[in-house]
Amino acid sequence: MAIKTNLDLVNETDNFPYYEDGRENYTDFLSSYWEFHLQGWSKPLGYIPEWAVEKMPWGDLWELDTKKRTVKPGRLESVPSQEELIRATLEKARDSKVFEVLKGWRNELYPIFGPRNTIENIVSMERAGSALFGINSYGVHMTVYVQTEEGMKIWVPRRARNKQTYGGYLDNTVAGGVSTGEKPFECMIRESAEEASFPEDLVRSKAKVCGTVSYIHIRDKRAGGETGLFQPECQHVYDMEVPADVVPKPNDNEVEEFYLWTVEEVQKAMAEGQIKPNCALVLLDFFVRHGILTAENEPDYVEIVSRLHRKLPFPTS
Amino acid sequence: MAIKTNLDLVNETDNFPYYEDGRENYTDFLSSYWEFHLQGWSKPLGYIPEWAVEKMPWGDLWELDTKKRTVKPGRLESVPSQEELIRATLEKARDSKVFEVLKGWRNELYPIFGPRNTIENIVSMERAGSALFGINSYGVHMTVYVQTEEGMKIWVPRRARNKQTYGGYLDNTVAGGVSTGEKPFECMIRESAEEASFPEDLVRSKAKVCGTVSYIHIRDKRAGGETGLFQPECQHVYDMEVPADVVPKPNDNEVEEFYLWTVEEVQKAMAEGQIKPNCALVLLDFFVRHGILTAENEPDYVEIVSRLHRKLPFPTS
Repeated sequence: MAIKTNLDLVNETDNFPYYEDGRENYTDFLSSYWEFHLQGWSKPLGYIPEWAVEKMPWGDLWELDTKKRTVKPGRLESVPSQEELIRATLEKARDSKVFEVLKGWRNELYPIFGPRNTIENIVSMERAGSALFGINSYGVHMTVYVQTEEGMKIWVPRRARNKQTYGGYLDNTVAGGVSTGEKPFECMIRESAEEASFPEDLVRSKAKVCGTVSYIHIRDKRAGGETGLFQPECQHVYDMEVPADVVPKPNDNEVEEFYLWTVEEVQKAMAEGQIKPNCALVLLDFFVRHGILTAENEPDYVEIVSRLHRKLPFPTS
Repeated sequence: MAIKTNLDLVNETDNFPYYEDGRENYTDFLSSYWEFHLQGWSKPLGYIPEWAVEKMPWGDLWELDTKKRTVKPGRLESVPSQEELIRATLEKARDSKVFEVLKGWRNELYPIFGPRNTIENIVSMERAGSALFGINSYGVHMTVYVQTEEGMKIWVPRRARNKQTYGGYLDNTVAGGVSTGEKPFECMIRESAEEASFPEDLVRSKAKVCGTVSYIHIRDKRAGGETGLFQPECQHVYDMEVPADVVPKPNDNEVEEFYLWTVEEVQKAMAEGQIKPNCALVLLDFFVRHGILTAENEPDYVEIVSRLHRKLPFPTS
């Protein structure tokens, strides 16, 4: 088994090129995507692979510009809103089974933010379609740990082996997606109950807000469904130290089991590629903030810390 | 007095454009700089303003390519090394008083890193010249705080009013530059003694390693000397909680006085622009890591957290 360095783990998830690292490479890579636009803002809000542009049942209400390589809702006489047009288009694609990823339809909306006061309110999109349009998406990840006589130990769940995405991989203690209208902290409270059976009172009093981890991921086959999808993601990160008698229990069928592991055991599993790739980034950020990973013991420290906080390509507020 | 938002504070220091935010603007901005190269690595290691390229006394041992807009040491028959050539050139510029910033000559070397195993060992450059060549530079910043009955209070120094750069501005409790060969943690120990009279034992036992803050700054007149210089900087950040009886004392003539301020007092001073701009970024990172700034109370949270950790444009390890 090839052992991965921490920088390898970062490269695997934050795997869309940086312009500064090679202008031609960046431009070549991006040339296989079209820009997704909305009325009300002149800049792109997502990147769609060209093959997905060709397969999407756009109908007559979208403007496709083959020269500029942009997709944008046209003037909206026939549908009530841009959001409604996106919904109708994705439902049609789902019903005609055009895309694998739409088999995971969730009836859950993800927000698309424009700079303040531009786009009509906030436009939302079915979560399963967000990766097809390549919009920014937002999640929460919490690392729950215990101080023991053997040092810090971290609660690590194993994902159910039959999960469509990353089945059997190790995960962060609590993780989930932030829907339209949901506050990140409230999302984390909800996910803590759903995924680990942590009581709300415990989480409200003990969880600490610690920042974000962000990256741009180009999807590969481990995620299930189509590959090459453009996924800029921001994870709101939280830490929670709990006493030894607080034990997470799976509360849905998404988690198979929780392990209580030392930092060394977690690092070994990471190096062996056992952890869901984006979760490795959240753990690296945890190790940085807790002084476990330092400039003195990690040769790629400076690069890693910045790569864990990539500026997302589209507006975020 | 105009009140600055936290994003304003970030924009003021991380003020070099992002390619993704506007490709033409980025390219226009960069077109007034030349690339600084070394033998042994094909990519740039710094950006030099065109007017500085014109004024620098390069002599015959550098290769200037007016088409590619690059500056690079030529083949080195006449000087012992690239480092020696840089030193001789900067000394000549200093002695002939070509640049204001070289009046602050320090006899202190800053490292230039290439990717591992490329450039002959590490090449170093006089600190005062680093901003002229636009190389990555590295520092340490520590936030020292006390838990009191009124909540957390932070030790904030005021820089001596006669300092050449940012005289009279507020600063981080301890801050300094990391020289060639110095480990960041050891640098922070040294600066803690020099700037705040903190005993080494105290700092070694109490200081916590917490990551980095990084940005690309285009220098304005508050920094003293020439403006428009390209300064990519990485600050290694540390926190230290101390008991109420540990009081910092200025130990050189760089600090005028230390204040012990509540978070609100520090935030007010930041919003009023009283704090040295890059120090404001370190404090924002501190507020993020301590859950003082959150997605719920700061509308620009997601953007701010990523902007505090910009990927530097040149190799870092």
